Amino acid sequence: MTEPDFLRACRGEAVDHVPVWFMRQAGRSLPEYRALRGNGSILEAIADPAIAAEVTMQPVRRYGVDAAILFSDIVVPYHAIGFGVDVVPGRGPVIAEPFRAPRDLTRLRDLQLEDVRHVTDTIDRVIDELSATNTPLIGFAGAPFTVASYLVEGAPTREFAVIKTLMHAQPALFDELMDRLVAITIAFLRVQVAHGARALQLFDSWAGSLTRDEYRRFALPATEKVLDGVADLNVPTILFGVGTGELLDLMASANSTVVGIDWHVDLDEGRRRVKGKPVQGNLDPARCLGGEALALSATRDVLARAGETPGYVFNLGHGVLPATDPAVLEAVVRLVHEEGKAGVR
Amino acid sequence: MTEPDFLRACRGEAVDHVPVWFMRQAGRSLPEYRALRGNGSILEAIADPAIAAEVTMQPVRRYGVDAAILFSDIVVPYHAIGFGVDVVPGRGPVIAEPFRAPRDLTRLRDLQLEDVRHVTDTIDRVIDELSATNTPLIGFAGAPFTVASYLVEGAPTREFAVIKTLMHAQPALFDELMDRLVAITIAFLRVQVAHGARALQLFDSWAGSLTRDEYRRFALPATEKVLDGVADLNVPTILFGVGTGELLDLMASANSTVVGIDWHVDLDEGRRRVKGKPVQGNLDPARCLGGEALALSATRDVLARAGETPGYVFNLGHGVLPATDPAVLEAVVRLVHEEGKAGVR
Repeated sequence: MTEPDFLRACRGEAVDHVPVWFMRQAGRSLPEYRALRGNGSILEAIADPAIAAEVTMQPVRRYGVDAAILFSDIVVPYHAIGFGVDVVPGRGPVIAEPFRAPRDLTRLRDLQLEDVRHVTDTIDRVIDELSATNTPLIGFAGAPFTVASYLVEGAPTREFAVIKTLMHAQPALFDELMDRLVAITIAFLRVQVAHGARALQLFDSWAGSLTRDEYRRFALPATEKVLDGVADLNVPTILFGVGTGELLDLMASANSTVVGIDWHVDLDEGRRRVKGKPVQGNLDPARCLGGEALALSATRDVLARAGETPGYVFNLGHGVLPATDPAVLEAVVRLVHEEGKAGVR
Repeated sequence: MTEPDFLRACRGEAVDHVPVWFMRQAGRSLPEYRALRGNGSILEAIADPAIAAEVTMQPVRRYGVDAAILFSDIVVPYHAIGFGVDVVPGRGPVIAEPFRAPRDLTRLRDLQLEDVRHVTDTIDRVIDELSATNTPLIGFAGAPFTVASYLVEGAPTREFAVIKTLMHAQPALFDELMDRLVAITIAFLRVQVAHGARALQLFDSWAGSLTRDEYRRFALPATEKVLDGVADLNVPTILFGVGTGELLDLMASANSTVVGIDWHVDLDEGRRRVKGKPVQGNLDPARCLGGEALALSATRDVLARAGETPGYVFNLGHGVLPATDPAVLEAVVRLVHEEGKAGVR
């Protein structure tokens, strides 16, 4: 079978059509997801391979996207090793005892295969169905800085005051924390590839909360270690964060195959900032809430800015919003496949 | 008396020392503020000129900043005309009946002097004490787009989905809404200057939620109308928003005297993007939470990036965080006055 367009685009190669998938395509915007999951905790749903596999497949069947992404969460490995993480609906990850002192390092032991057996079981369940259509599965993890921000702050924050104080006041402790997270993240990504993931996305969702100096000193080195730690697997890697306009050149300097561009940055400008690296993005998810005509108009704008150069994966510039009408995303996928020109041979 | 350094810096003129004030300097970080206000609503405190005047003066006395800013809120004029706004502690402005349809335009009548008598009474009370030290008072208002986002969304949002759908799906209605807000904003700013405000800041706090195309089409024109509507008053105007790195050149194209730079953008890069216009900013407020030594180190970085060119007002790159130790801000003011070099003659 030929290499799927999604993987070819990630590598900057010519494609039959511009590939497309959506961050958070598996989840709350789909009625079949809400019907399956009910009101339980997302961590419970992730812990059940039958449910997680079905949720992973739902958007592939409905939208005809070019890649599946594992139904999971960036806190999964930390929940699995018993750090004491819960995901509160409408709020996000909450840590019972946040990371605050050197003694907390021991709570971040190495990840063992049996810790994430539910994750590999989920991959095992989806991989056959995906193989039938040669649809790649994307595995993922949180980048160390973003994970650290949750573990240290203890809850979602807009200010990142605790983590910033830690990094500046106790840089050695911060570095030790990051080293623990690097080891766990590499192990978590490698096991996903071992079971069949054909690409990896590293979510540094909150990198945009850092200045350039902070990103360079406190986030980028750990991200580079993670990317180096999976480089021998030879699967494309995508590095993505929100509000990273000021950081794109630094992100592009790391060893990922693709840089994800969030919707704040015009895509043509984003492509310039990453200096020719393949990019993924960047339709504003809010543009998908006003009906099909508006979403398609916005999609055409993004496709125009993507240009005709290879190395482009269409996506949103952040996750699908829960209120999104799935029919709108179906129409977006059709349009990208029909009208996308980036790298089409 | 000579023109104060703050006003001179806003106009790009040489100064005796780099002037400094802090967004949200009047408020929750000061124990004397918390003692005075207790647990009442912020709108109640603003409605009481004795309290509002005292709160306006507290940071001037404690910090020795180069300007006072009126203790107020961007929703004050809309509360005053009965739009149905409340400010919920820990949450922000909440609108009982958000703006959704043409009939809601009639709820945005012109602002009358008597609507904001409490505001002008507050200014009247502080202006003598400020004159004694030749300390300018900064008046302010929300820019139309940011105000519209509250009135339309009905509550603080991270997604801006309702306002974006309105602007793209019903641009004519959106424009009519903006015209109402322009008229109210100009009236509100003019009355503040009439009573003694010597500078004006326009907070377009959420401009960074827009793409460049959206900002150019849906936010900038109304901002320009407001600035044009106060231009004859001949007071410096400062245009500020958060997460506006992609927009700074567009913001600089409007008719404000100064552009505020948020902390995500390195200040030297920010100065380049506004092409020589005076700037204000941009210490990350989170850097003030780790003690004096860390805050002073971060302050020195900002001063270094400000350079030696005139046209610079030191400030944070967003509002003072409630947990900030006032002693740290006192030390920052001293350092800026002692070591700042931008435009010092």
